[in-house]
Amino acid sequence: MSDVPAEILLSRAALSRLVEPSDAVGLALAVTVGPVDALRIATGSLPAGVQLQHEVMECLGMESGPRSVLAEALERWAPRRKDLAPERDLATLNRLGGRLIVPESPDWPAALDDLQLAAPLCLWVRGPGDIPGGHRVVALVGSRDSTSYGNAVTGDLAAGLVGRGFTIVSGGAYGIDARAHRAALAVGGVGALPTMAVMACGVDRYYPAGNEEMLRAIAGRGFLVSEVPPGSSPTRWRFLQRNRLIAALSSVTVVVEARWRSGALNTAHHAAGLGRAVGAVPGSVHSANSAGCHRLLRDGSAVCVTDAAEIAELAGPIGSEQGTEPVVAALDHDGLSVPDILLLDALPVRAVSTIEKLASVAGLSTREVMAGLSRLEIAGLAARTTDGWRRQKN
Amino acid sequence: MSDVPAEILLSRAALSRLVEPSDAVGLALAVTVGPVDALRIATGSLPAGVQLQHEVMECLGMESGPRSVLAEALERWAPRRKDLAPERDLATLNRLGGRLIVPESPDWPAALDDLQLAAPLCLWVRGPGDIPGGHRVVALVGSRDSTSYGNAVTGDLAAGLVGRGFTIVSGGAYGIDARAHRAALAVGGVGALPTMAVMACGVDRYYPAGNEEMLRAIAGRGFLVSEVPPGSSPTRWRFLQRNRLIAALSSVTVVVEARWRSGALNTAHHAAGLGRAVGAVPGSVHSANSAGCHRLLRDGSAVCVTDAAEIAELAGPIGSEQGTEPVVAALDHDGLSVPDILLLDALPVRAVSTIEKLASVAGLSTREVMAGLSRLEIAGLAARTTDGWRRQKN
Repeated sequence: MSDVPAEILLSRAALSRLVEPSDAVGLALAVTVGPVDALRIATGSLPAGVQLQHEVMECLGMESGPRSVLAEALERWAPRRKDLAPERDLATLNRLGGRLIVPESPDWPAALDDLQLAAPLCLWVRGPGDIPGGHRVVALVGSRDSTSYGNAVTGDLAAGLVGRGFTIVSGGAYGIDARAHRAALAVGGVGALPTMAVMACGVDRYYPAGNEEMLRAIAGRGFLVSEVPPGSSPTRWRFLQRNRLIAALSSVTVVVEARWRSGALNTAHHAAGLGRAVGAVPGSVHSANSAGCHRLLRDGSAVCVTDAAEIAELAGPIGSEQGTEPVVAALDHDGLSVPDILLLDALPVRAVSTIEKLASVAGLSTREVMAGLSRLEIAGLAARTTDGWRRQKN
Repeated sequence: MSDVPAEILLSRAALSRLVEPSDAVGLALAVTVGPVDALRIATGSLPAGVQLQHEVMECLGMESGPRSVLAEALERWAPRRKDLAPERDLATLNRLGGRLIVPESPDWPAALDDLQLAAPLCLWVRGPGDIPGGHRVVALVGSRDSTSYGNAVTGDLAAGLVGRGFTIVSGGAYGIDARAHRAALAVGGVGALPTMAVMACGVDRYYPAGNEEMLRAIAGRGFLVSEVPPGSSPTRWRFLQRNRLIAALSSVTVVVEARWRSGALNTAHHAAGLGRAVGAVPGSVHSANSAGCHRLLRDGSAVCVTDAAEIAELAGPIGSEQGTEPVVAALDHDGLSVPDILLLDALPVRAVSTIEKLASVAGLSTREVMAGLSRLEIAGLAARTTDGWRRQKN
């Protein structure tokens, strides 16, 4: 970060207040002319010539129309020019121990570049260390009005993933989000910091208020992250756009509980659109809070996940992950051939039988019965008595 | 059935006792020379020449080996020759009001032909009317040790499907099977008979004993079906083979509850192998009885289904099925453009705001704010006062 010229930091800080998240024209302008000139143009101190208008349109993949989208955008941004005070915003962040991360910084998460033209202008970050991105990061998201089932599952998943060295990303909201952050903080993190909250408001604000204590703890032992500057309030638009950051920063997005319509589904669709793995936790068909998860499973947008190991598997091959096949007691007939299964079924448990009778009952030749009995005897499944053969429990 | 020569009925009846279900050589022999000569050869009254041995091998897609599989099979079938009494078996079936259905009968379910060489030699059937097969038939299968959740879901699904004119197929066992049959019988059937139990034993036996009353009711108002003759006992092999008949007779197989290892998964894999639709009902990740369902969902073998409508949809286009999109209350911002969502978010509910302030808060030009306010006012979402604008709840 120290290598990034102050002018770039200040310009991106200012642009992030002037321009709403995912404002395509603002992002295209910054890509086309760089953040410093982009700010000058956005604030009217550098004129936007016809040539630039064409370049921005081209960057957006649009044909030039009767009225330039850049001219429209300049008009849109104008009312906020008077609010710009990037030095003050950076000082606020500094006081909170935070820093501004920009694409020009060495610690910019490469995962965000997958957003292409929708990549944020900068990230306002509170928390120690470099923010994680990619491979060992899992988003756990879901309903605000979670059920006790959803809470319990979220706690198990978060703890299991943090124990495997993953960082848990969520949105800092009530319900599933809070349960995921809290469980991650409780476990503490192995190597990586345990959790990261991606906010729809400034990182100096604790929203929702009931989560203030938790959000302060995250800022101390994890990360609070936002693309909007300090003081910004959370709006519906910012919540929706915030979801794309959660998806982009994580290698897997898991929806633990969600109603048929839920912001968590929006995050899942962002993740799928980025080619990231998406998991959904199943639940009761009677629970409205699982309807959104089942919807994702049904339409093939998500993979069914039931524990931390299955999610770790989705995150990609590490080599250290265990398969999810549970340990199941071997059954007597495991590995037997079909004739030997038929023979085993024909052997009485509480009486004895003859080779001729076994042949008829099992539907095998006497030769097959004799060969099979030898194999079952060796396997400890058949016992020879003076009167005939009986089944032996292994 | 009356059109089928008695010789064919008797031969297939006898072959079904001589030869275990899915005995490939027996089935290939019947296909190659027809049931009458197949029985003669199987019982040794007609010699099996070298030419026939080659034909059977070819039917099985095998190269001729050092020892013919047909010679081996004849040896395997020999011990049961003394048990053959097809007239007695047919008389037993008749006394129970049943009949033998064979591939030569007009009422043979065409769906069974999808089993190709594994199609049964015949079906021993009790119950009124023609047995259903194909389009409007759904199998509901699952654990014997079902939970109250599994029982409740099974009852809902069976009732909902029978109400839509489907026949419910299952295996007559305890747990999910019994719940499915009972719920179907309770609803009673619309046009078609409500339920069919495919047994691993003879249709004159009530296995398991605790389901006797239910199985008798199914024989009276639905169908009891088996490929093994009266008196046959249920063996592990016959249970496994029975599963392929459940899968083949149904257009959709739904696993309601299943442990990680469960016979119901075997039925599901048969159905998938036949190109039939497979559904799995999700449940709690804490329930071992849902682990098999989640396994099917996770490995992509099954589609997530949560109600009868979703299963009916899997069964194919009928035209009468409703979509599964639940009725959800429309939200204020449904259908709004992005600028109008930003504007709606910026409008205060308990105070008023000016156009200039709205432009700055929403990140829009004053022109856009004015145009947007008009649209929101028409939509009943914004209200004009003498001091400015405020949000209106729709």
